[in-house]
Formats: sequence, structure tokens, C-alpha cells
Amino acid sequence: MFLNDPTLFLPGEPIAAVATPVGVGALAVVRISGEGVHRLADRVFRKANGEVQALAGSVGYMAHFGRLYAGEQLVDEVIALVFRAPHSFTAEDMVEFTCHGGPVVVQQVLQLLLDSGCRLAEPGEFTRRAFLNGRIDLLQAEAIGEMIHARSESAWRTAASQMKGDLSDRLNALRERLLHSCALLELELDFSEEEVEFQSRDELTRQVVDLRDEVARLVESYQHGRLLSEGVSTVIAGRPNAGKSTLLNTLLGHERAIVSNMPGTTRDYIEECFIYDKTMFRLTDTAGLRESGEEIESEGIRRSRMKMAEADLLLYLLDIGTDRLEEEIGDIISIRQQHPDARCIIVANKVDRVADALTRIDKVARETCAEAIGISALEGMGIETLKQRMGALVGDLDKLHEASVLVTSLRHYEALRNAADALQNAGELIGRQRDTELIAFELRTALDHVGEITGKVVNEEILNTIFSRFCIGK
Amino acid sequence: MFLNDPTLFLPGEPIAAVATPVGVGALAVVRISGEGVHRLADRVFRKANGEVQALAGSVGYMAHFGRLYAGEQLVDEVIALVFRAPHSFTAEDMVEFTCHGGPVVVQQVLQLLLDSGCRLAEPGEFTRRAFLNGRIDLLQAEAIGEMIHARSESAWRTAASQMKGDLSDRLNALRERLLHSCALLELELDFSEEEVEFQSRDELTRQVVDLRDEVARLVESYQHGRLLSEGVSTVIAGRPNAGKSTLLNTLLGHERAIVSNMPGTTRDYIEECFIYDKTMFRLTDTAGLRESGEEIESEGIRRSRMKMAEADLLLYLLDIGTDRLEEEIGDIISIRQQHPDARCIIVANKVDRVADALTRIDKVARETCAEAIGISALEGMGIETLKQRMGALVGDLDKLHEASVLVTSLRHYEALRNAADALQNAGELIGRQRDTELIAFELRTALDHVGEITGKVVNEEILNTIFSRFCIGK
Repeated sequence: MFLNDPTLFLPGEPIAAVATPVGVGALAVVRISGEGVHRLADRVFRKANGEVQALAGSVGYMAHFGRLYAGEQLVDEVIALVFRAPHSFTAEDMVEFTCHGGPVVVQQVLQLLLDSGCRLAEPGEFTRRAFLNGRIDLLQAEAIGEMIHARSESAWRTAASQMKGDLSDRLNALRERLLHSCALLELELDFSEEEVEFQSRDELTRQVVDLRDEVARLVESYQHGRLLSEGVSTVIAGRPNAGKSTLLNTLLGHERAIVSNMPGTTRDYIEECFIYDKTMFRLTDTAGLRESGEEIESEGIRRSRMKMAEADLLLYLLDIGTDRLEEEIGDIISIRQQHPDARCIIVANKVDRVADALTRIDKVARETCAEAIGISALEGMGIETLKQRMGALVGDLDKLHEASVLVTSLRHYEALRNAADALQNAGELIGRQRDTELIAFELRTALDHVGEITGKVVNEEILNTIFSRFCIGK
Repeated sequence: MFLNDPTLFLPGEPIAAVATPVGVGALAVVRISGEGVHRLADRVFRKANGEVQALAGSVGYMAHFGRLYAGEQLVDEVIALVFRAPHSFTAEDMVEFTCHGGPVVVQQVLQLLLDSGCRLAEPGEFTRRAFLNGRIDLLQAEAIGEMIHARSESAWRTAASQMKGDLSDRLNALRERLLHSCALLELELDFSEEEVEFQSRDELTRQVVDLRDEVARLVESYQHGRLLSEGVSTVIAGRPNAGKSTLLNTLLGHERAIVSNMPGTTRDYIEECFIYDKTMFRLTDTAGLRESGEEIESEGIRRSRMKMAEADLLLYLLDIGTDRLEEEIGDIISIRQQHPDARCIIVANKVDRVADALTRIDKVARETCAEAIGISALEGMGIETLKQRMGALVGDLDKLHEASVLVTSLRHYEALRNAADALQNAGELIGRQRDTELIAFELRTALDHVGEITGKVVNEEILNTIFSRFCIGK
């Protein structure tokens, strides 16, 4: 365990990495950070005006136009932007080279810098250094990762808020109050022979209950925060030929194409995504359910069941003209019982082809106690209403978000839940008039869990887990 | 027709574009250029230290850390790098914002700048402005495009040389000499009544022949320059079951993966590429030939024939154990006659399974007058030798390249061929003692064609063609 303390700042060995996405573009950025990088860079950089040692002699935040050379071979014309410790992203000496954006030229520039004495950065190493050198806290480091991987406007907005430090501020305030209560209790322990109470037990109870409530509110906010940052996991269920694929395509087709197979995402399966009113819906078609008649325990069904168990929203698609309506109503009731946490919308398809569609929809809604909407996937009828209802069921996330700070990461959620548990325990111990030592231990535990989030208290393992998820260059 | 003349410099309307590749990365660059962009950017940029109008008040080549805001909404933390006309890529006022590299956040930053009064840049508009404002010549503008799309080290190296101005220098020197001869001839025309010769016809002949020879050498260099920049078009031909696909995979498999389906390339078909000794080979498997027995005029065959006609290198793959050796030797001879320009290597496969393989290879080589190499595609035997021979047949491009300036673009090749033709005509006219006016006209034509390359003489249409091939943001 260690603290991130700026006074412990030690510049690291020089590292280099490409910071921009791989591909063809006008420009790319290759950056280096660590001890002596200005001198290293001067070995291969020649300023356009012939000045030597231009980077080592430069003030921070100053850019220089020049060329990179491997011996006599021109590698590229670049802009070299100099940063001087501690005024840089990593708080170390840095140079950002803006070169031309082709894969081969970028590789050549990187290789040149590696040959000059830098080593290739590990994933997330720049951000890790920024954290270790006290430039940002752990929450902000994670927010940078969230921002890069944000796939919807809501996710981006949440990450921006976290990067700005909204959640950090909230947690730091909470931690201060917790620390105060802890300190007083520990003072009592130091003076235990004298049996002094530095704060009344009533006062302490009030404090602990307040803190627990506040932590609990943050824990609850994860319910929405997760939807904002990860998107709403939406599963389309229903019998074969209900029109599931058509519905999927109709939902996707009317929206701008959102990259569903984005490089850098770690999912091992591909979902189709669409954005409605800034919220991302991740759509999965449970095609596997169709084969249920043929092969009971097939991989497809196992997966579909797993997807349904994880779903935030179930769209049950029903051919409203079916002659097995009673049977399907039974299916829906049973699915809802199996998945009580998922919100459910019954989508009655093919309403344009069935005369008594409305009567039938009413019956389904009444008997299943679920919302039912009539559409024609093929004709595109009712799709906008469906989307509106999907949005409404999820809640007005954006408003929620503006109103308060949301927890969006599983790591933060778990730490907060642990803190809430410890505070709950502390409250009970006070109520049962137990030893000050036990109470202090629980408060200290809560304090550690809150500290884990911003990185005030953190171990190497947590850091490795967090930064290994970053890409190289970040 | 117009000249690119720095004195005609007029700052353009403000434009904005994302300059880095699309995708997930640590950083992305969004840049703006044109009149008043510093003031426009100051509307949405707030410096970390609270300073207002930071960008409008900044000197050039200075970077500023701060935040972009859409109203009160934080869009991203950025570094804003200020350039002041004429010391920027476009020679206009510019700002480069380095923001976080996620697709959504980049889109938000771009949108913010568009909302502040910039319009989205057209493809290649930044580079076009750099050319129009006299910052770079047309050759250098094209070199930037080549550099970005370079897929091999050789292609990158050629682009770097062109960007440095090696070809420009050569053409400018050539143009000076041509201009000198032209000027003297036109002086004669001005004083035509006095029948003076400002240079002897012998002297003029020598000049014109020298110039023609130099232009012809550049024209010839395209033969190699094209291979460097586009790669060597290599077609694998042969009968079904000769092992073509295995050979293709073996050739590809031992090399690092090179993106064959790179975004931003304009090819409408996909080839597999591999790099050997810095040279790119673009491999096409003529699968279509297999169906020749079934459907004579199929699309596949038409394509294969087209690919073979375009090929720089033909690899004819032969099962050396075949019982129809004579027949195949006939095929090879006929293919070589049909494609006299393509270099050809006969690849004798399955040598490990045939006892008299070496005798058979000798026979094939002798009767077809082509080089033949024994391999086992399946076992990977002989593959390194094959690659070496492929490299050798193409020639030591790298050496060639170091020794001289190469023409790599079809546009330059055509302009130079036209110039060579005009010089040839001029030479003949002098020899036939024709009117000075006719000679001057041909020299003027040659001058214009050379001028087209660097952009000294250029029309809107050429510019449109060149820059429309660039991506937006370049």
C-alpha cells in the first residue's frame, strides 16, 4: 500500500508511444516522457532554422518546427511540443511530436525514438505516471479511459464530469467527514484510561447515519450510471418468425451508424448499438432461442439465457395475429418471473395485418401486467413510439445526470458498497454500546474503501488492473 | 491558369477538421485555420489559469492547457497550440487542439468548433491552402499524401525524399535551363527584323538534347518509382491443386501482418500484401482461372486476365510431379508471350514428393527460358529463396532510390513524357532549320509541362483532382 504523493516524485525512465489511433489520417502524435527526453530527442530532431539542442534549450509549452532524421535519412517533418516537469501530463519532461498520419511513417518515427534510448510504454503507463506523480487522482485517470471509450453522448458527458473532478470532490468531502469522526474516536482510544468522550455517542450516531445515507445514495446511483456509461443492455426475445431480425434492423437502420465493432473495446462478442436521445442501447437478438425445439441445451440457448439474465430491458416481440396467443401470454408471464429486475416492453408486431389488433394488445397488456405497444416492423409503423417508450422506461438519464453525481464504474460501486456495509456495522456497534475500538475499526474500514476509489489508498494490484485496460500511448 | 504566389496571400474563411485517424486512441487532434480563428477559439476555450482571450493574445508556436466548454458543459481538457500567419502549415492563423482520442469526444470537439463559426474543411483543403499560399509546392503537397498512404518502408522513403524537395529541386533546375533557352529564343523573335541569333543553333541543339535526355531519364525512373510507391503487383497463376492458396498463405504468413484493407485506400478490391526487404508485393491469387473448364467467359476469368495484364511479376505455380508437364510448359510459354513486360518466375511445388524433381525443374527452365525455383509450399521449403529471387528480379530498388531521384506518380510521369515529346519536336525543328517561332512554341510547351508538376503552372482542374484524393483534415 502506498500513497500518491507529489513530494515522492521521481522522474521515470524515458518511454515512447504512439498516442493517436492507428490508421490513415493527416496527423499522428508520438510522445515521449521521462528523465532526459529533451536531450534524447535533440539527437534526432533538427530545427528548421538550424538551431541545435532546440528542445533541451526550450521553455515549456513551446512548439518547434523541424525534421526528424535517422542519420542522414529524413524520417518526417514534425512539430515538436516541449513540456517541462512538472508542467506536463505525466508531470515529467515530455515531448509530443506531431508527424504525418500514415501507419508506416508513424512506425518509423516511433522506431527512431526507441532507437534513441526510449523504451516502448506499457499500456496506460503515461496515465499511471500522471497518477503516481500526483497530477490526477485515480478517478480522473479512469475518467480519461471512459472518455476515450465513450460510445454515446451520455457516456462522454459522464466521463467529462468525472474528469472535471465532480465525483472526486464529493468523495473527498465525504472522506474528510469520515476522517474527522475517526480521528476523534482514535483520540478517545489514546486517552482510554481517562474515559473521555470527545464526541457524544448521539452525535457520532448522527454522523455515521448521515455518512451511510450519502454513501448509499451513491451506491444506488450506479443503477443509472452504469446505463449511461455502458449503455442499456436490450434483449429482443420472441418466437421464430415474430420478426425479430426485421425489428433489429429497423431500430438500427433509422439511426446514424454507430461502430459496433470498434477497435480497442474488449468485448468478445458483437452487439449492435443505437443511440436514442443520447442514450446508447446495446441490442442483442436472441436468435439462439429459435432452435429450442431442436437441441435443448445448445450453446446458442445457453448464451441467450445468459443475455436475458443480464438484460436491463427485454423487448418481447409477438406476432399479434398468432393463433397461440394464450400460450405466448403464458411464456411472457414466465419470462417476467424469471427476470424480475429487467424492464419489459411487449412489442406487438404486424398490427397492420390483423383486424382486432388493438383488442388483442389490450388483452396481452392486461394479463401480463406489462406495457404493450403495437408496431409494424416491416412498414416502420410505431417504431418512434417504441423508441420513446424505451427511453422513458430507462428514465431521463440526462436530467438525473445533470442533477447529481453518478457512479458509473463497477470498481467504485463495489468499494462504496463495502464502505456502506462498514458504516452500517459501525452504526449498529454504537447502538449496542460496544467498544470504541470496534467502532473505530469499522470507520477506518469505510475510510479505506472510499480512499481506494480516488487512489488515496491503493495497492499495486488495483493499479495494474486499472491501467492494463488502457491502450499503449495513453 | 494561375500562379501560386505568396504575395497574393489572402486568409481563407475559418475551417475545422479532425486531423488524426478515426478510432480509439489516447489523443486526437482537431485543427482550425483561417481568418480570425484565434478569436473564434477563445469563445469556447478557457485556460486553466483563468486567463481570457488566451489564444488571441498568444504568440505563435505557444501551447496552452485548458478546457473547451459548450456553454457550461465541459467538452474536454485540451492543449491548444497557436500558430500565427504566415508561420503555420497553411500560412494562415491556426489552432491545433489536442483532445482525448475517443470517437464521441472528438465529434463533440469538432461540433463545438463548427458551432463557433468554422465550417467543415473539404478533403485536402488544409494542404491546398498551404500550396495556394506558397508554403509548399505541388510536389510537396502530393508527397504528404503519399507519405500518409505509404504502405512500405520504400514508399515512405520515396515520399520523404519528395517532401524534402529532392524532385522539386531537380525540376526547378531543369526549368531554369529551359526558361533560359526560351528567353533567348523569344528575344530573337522580338528582334526578328534584325535577324540576330542570341545563341547559335548548335548551342541550342546541345541544350535541347541535354534537356530531353534528362527528362527521358526521369520518365524512365517511373518504371521503378511506381514499384516503390505502389508496390509490386504480383499474380500467382497455375492450374487447380498446384497449391496456389498454400503458397499465398505461406508468403503472407511469415511476414508481419500488413493491413490489406486499410481505411482511406481507394481500391475497390482487396489484395494481400507482404513486405520483403522494404519492398511491398501486392499478391493476387488468380482463383478465377480455375473455373476455365466450366464457364468460359466468367467474370472471374476476365478479372484474372486483367490482373495478369497489369502484373509486374508473374509467379507460375506448377506441381512438379504433374503427368502433364509438356502441356504446362506449353501454357507457360504462351503466358509469357502474352505478357512480355511482366517478369516471370516458375515456382515448382511439391519438390519433396517427387524423386526426379531437379531434372524436371531443369527441363522446365530450359524449355520456357524462365527462371525456375523448387519449393514445398506445405513444408515451407524454398520459400526464402523464392522471396530473395522475387526481390532480385524487381531490382535493388532501395539502392536505385538512394542513387537518384525517382518519379513515382502517374501525373508526373505523364507531364514529363509530354515535356520529353515537346523537346524531341523542338530538336527536330532545329535540325530542319525551321522557324524560330515553332521552336519557341515547343520549348514553351515543355516548360509548361514541367511547371505543371511543381505547380508553377497549374489549373483548377488539376488541383481539384489532386486534393479531392486527400482525406478531410489533411
